[in-house]
Amino acid sequence: MDFKIYTNPTEADVADIVRRPTKDATDLTATVAAVLADVRERGDAAVLDYEQRFDQVALASLAVSDDEFAAAEAAVSAELRQALEQAYINISRFHEAQRPVPVTVETAAGVRCWQKGVPIERVGLYVPGGTAPLFSTVLMLAAPARIAGCSEVVLCTPPQRDGSVHPAILVAARIAGVGRVFKCGGVQAIGAMAYGTASVPKVCKIFGPGNQYVQAAKQQVALTDVAIDMPAGPSEVAVIADETAQAAFVASDLLAQAEHGRDSQVLLLTTSRQLLDGVVDELERQLEALPRRDIAAAALANSRLVLVASLAEAMRISNIYAPEHLIIETADAPQLAQDVVNAGSVFIGHLTPESAGDYASGTNHTLPTNGWAKAYSGVNLDAYYRKITFQQLSPEGVRSIAATVEAMAAAESLEGHRNAMTLRRLEVEGPTPGPSPREGRVES
Amino acid sequence: MDFKIYTNPTEADVADIVRRPTKDATDLTATVAAVLADVRERGDAAVLDYEQRFDQVALASLAVSDDEFAAAEAAVSAELRQALEQAYINISRFHEAQRPVPVTVETAAGVRCWQKGVPIERVGLYVPGGTAPLFSTVLMLAAPARIAGCSEVVLCTPPQRDGSVHPAILVAARIAGVGRVFKCGGVQAIGAMAYGTASVPKVCKIFGPGNQYVQAAKQQVALTDVAIDMPAGPSEVAVIADETAQAAFVASDLLAQAEHGRDSQVLLLTTSRQLLDGVVDELERQLEALPRRDIAAAALANSRLVLVASLAEAMRISNIYAPEHLIIETADAPQLAQDVVNAGSVFIGHLTPESAGDYASGTNHTLPTNGWAKAYSGVNLDAYYRKITFQQLSPEGVRSIAATVEAMAAAESLEGHRNAMTLRRLEVEGPTPGPSPREGRVES
Repeated sequence: MDFKIYTNPTEADVADIVRRPTKDATDLTATVAAVLADVRERGDAAVLDYEQRFDQVALASLAVSDDEFAAAEAAVSAELRQALEQAYINISRFHEAQRPVPVTVETAAGVRCWQKGVPIERVGLYVPGGTAPLFSTVLMLAAPARIAGCSEVVLCTPPQRDGSVHPAILVAARIAGVGRVFKCGGVQAIGAMAYGTASVPKVCKIFGPGNQYVQAAKQQVALTDVAIDMPAGPSEVAVIADETAQAAFVASDLLAQAEHGRDSQVLLLTTSRQLLDGVVDELERQLEALPRRDIAAAALANSRLVLVASLAEAMRISNIYAPEHLIIETADAPQLAQDVVNAGSVFIGHLTPESAGDYASGTNHTLPTNGWAKAYSGVNLDAYYRKITFQQLSPEGVRSIAATVEAMAAAESLEGHRNAMTLRRLEVEGPTPGPSPREGRVES
Repeated sequence: MDFKIYTNPTEADVADIVRRPTKDATDLTATVAAVLADVRERGDAAVLDYEQRFDQVALASLAVSDDEFAAAEAAVSAELRQALEQAYINISRFHEAQRPVPVTVETAAGVRCWQKGVPIERVGLYVPGGTAPLFSTVLMLAAPARIAGCSEVVLCTPPQRDGSVHPAILVAARIAGVGRVFKCGGVQAIGAMAYGTASVPKVCKIFGPGNQYVQAAKQQVALTDVAIDMPAGPSEVAVIADETAQAAFVASDLLAQAEHGRDSQVLLLTTSRQLLDGVVDELERQLEALPRRDIAAAALANSRLVLVASLAEAMRISNIYAPEHLIIETADAPQLAQDVVNAGSVFIGHLTPESAGDYASGTNHTLPTNGWAKAYSGVNLDAYYRKITFQQLSPEGVRSIAATVEAMAAAESLEGHRNAMTLRRLEVEGPTPGPSPREGRVES
């Protein structure tokens, strides 16, 4: 295999190293818009039509029945069920600890302000079908919804060719407390949750990964109808390694990312030439054993292996790249991790592969890709809440801030704003005639 | 004036009451896209051209100079400066208290997970020009950026006809620690901050209000280049009042909202016919005294005054409406406020007008409108952070979760994921030959 190897990259090289392939999705816009408009207009009938057309399944109804849930329970091995339950416990433990802390402050005498986390009422989770049944994503998206206390949690996922949903997805949904599961995928699923249909309730926010059609649909409905978790892109990993790293471990981490898809991004930053050479050998060796070797090989063709002069330089490049996943396989990994500025989730030390967090460490695996880590958090408990602010003024509070409010409102030429405060001030100042509203005015 | 008055609304009435005018901004899409593309391509030159065309100002450069800052300091009255400083203190106090709390959990033996708030590096603030200089927005957007510790905070605002920026905006920017201010507005300002130009740095997230062109530009750049605070719409208020409310106060609150713009939304929900009648009288009386009475009257024409059977019903309708601002002017306001599910910011009691929070109580006035309060928080300290997750497995941690990870990865047909965990497990299990990677596999 040919790998793109950089040694002591210049700034121009760094710009090249951190560049992602830009994919122009504007050609999808019209197609996606047409399907969304149809779902908005015809509801379930449209969704059923598109299931037939895109998933080749003729469904009688969208909702997964109790019988189907029961059949799924019987179809999943005891080992897998136990694994799902263990993962769910760990994910729940980590997200439980993120409960929003109420904030109360007396900002000025008699002016009490507070902030309260209130769960989003209805959330919709999307779990893709495709080559691998991503039941782990069910746990990741549903556990925080349950902890937050969202009153309605629904899940859409495309049916398999026989009209069923993969049993592990249904078992995971039951473990994680998802209320209802609907057999629909793609753009039509996003439309159903954004607008609501007779079967599928309209939600306030949609979470979850998907192909470029799903992503385009999420971005379109987010313009007008519903919030989404974050924009998405191909999955990616950066590994920072020094001479203490094991080449086999590093290669396995790169391959775990590469097997996701042909467009997966893989980046190694190392201070050790020997490690780099060892990783190249291990990549070729381990690749042969992978069932998804064709996909992984295609992704590796775009990989970048970079020899840098120092770990500080490695971290600097990583922070410019802003990887979805960052694995630090160095002697001083915990210390180096303190310099992370831009990343989705960070895996520390030789014994912490990304797959630990993909499934069961407890952190969320729904993370910002494509450089979005510069501005977005991964899915966390916050994402299921609004933080609503409250304030209450006592008579003393009115005395504390009335002059400030009146001066600023007048200077912004908003006399109505000023008057609403002035009336309260006059009330508090009592029967003695205070200054008339006009006199409260201050010119800037 | 004609007001839309509802008495004991039916569910059909409620659907009508909570309906917002839908504005189709798709006709702006092409115009906005063209300006953005030009700014991306030509940078400062394009921005300067659009300033000439749209703001009728021929600028030599975009950055506000030190001399201009100094002139602004001299131009602002002592009273206004004091008001700005007091407001900034209160806003800072409330946002300081929102600092993210680090979360650390041992989710399973030897599996340590933590979450850390890391400030977004570069943020861009947009402050509109127009009929009123919104210097209060400068404080609201810049105070949390400073508290979070964003390393670069820039502000764009359209110049006045004479090429200067309103002095109160510059003074507010200095008080709130904004690094650089640029004279540019509209779509070109959003493009400049999203893509970066020779003058204006590229930012990671853009905050701030604006007209429909600005909003369309923010949504377009958010598809591919930069995060934004939230979608926007016309400002709005709901007031819940009982017979203890003062009609003059309630009317002043409705008018303070109505004066914002012709498309402002105003909703009164009351249990008292007498209060409702009193508010109608007061609206007509107070309207006459308002400088912006034409705007307010236009907004009031779309207002809805609703007589309901109970405060519970009032709160139910308010939660369906999801107002940006909710003022509760009732005897039991603090208790009723506990039932708020959907709102941006809540103002409690007879002495707490919305204008208190617009300027100086300390809560943020950048809030979700148009029903977005169902899914979005107002701007708060969180909005300036990413919460990055970290995890580290000890040898015991590997023993804790390896079987779970391996079982789930295998069942998701991701052998590369499984292998990355298996290699660590074999390492931890030591020289005694453990099960081969293949044996770790569990079928679903």
